[in-house]
Amino acid sequence: MGGDPSELEWAIQTLVKNYDKYAGKRGCCCCKRRRGISKKGFRKMLSHELNHMLTDTKNKHAADKLICDLDENQDGRISFNEYWNLIGGIAGPISCLIRQQEESVKFTK
Amino acid sequence: MGGDPSELEWAIQTLVKNYDKYAGKRGCCCCKRRRGISKKGFRKMLSHELNHMLTDTKNKHAADKLICDLDENQDGRISFNEYWNLIGGIAGPISCLIRQQEESVKFTK
Repeated sequence: MGGDPSELEWAIQTLVKNYDKYAGKRGCCCCKRRRGISKKGFRKMLSHELNHMLTDTKNKHAADKLICDLDENQDGRISFNEYWNLIGGIAGPISCLIRQQEESVKFTK
Repeated sequence: MGGDPSELEWAIQTLVKNYDKYAGKRGCCCCKRRRGISKKGFRKMLSHELNHMLTDTKNKHAADKLICDLDENQDGRISFNEYWNLIGGIAGPISCLIRQQEESVKFTK
């Protein structure tokens, strides 16, 4: 495990840490039951962390719909797997936008 | 869309760009059919980008098993969604390790 993490590893770590930040207190490694992100926490996350990517992050109803669609086990809190699917659901559609931005940066360099 | 992207947005962008890097030529936004990552490209990605996180990244057979499990539509190439699930499958189990590293950094600061 020597050397610095790659950009991809850094990105994965950032996603994990972001989950922990909004899921409340950190579960220990032996603890199977983590708190998950509440609806309130989820809205806060959308608004604070993804406000460039999501146009309607401050829209309470949109956030509620997103969490309702996402909360597979209907317990009102999103687990790490549900969170990961959310980010994937965001990343897929916006990947086109990201590519366009990337290309435009190349042209302006 | 003003201001710099958040750390989370930067992380998502990194994951998207990493996919593009190994999926071969970039599809245009109108092109529904992207190339996906080949088995060879996938092994290369594991070895180059996740060598701190995966202990057996250089193990050809382990990589093949991972891509076989992952390649849902059995076309031998992994799509963006399959790639996202792979990274999620890695992030879940290692999130504990990441938390431990985070805690140990705090204690040494």
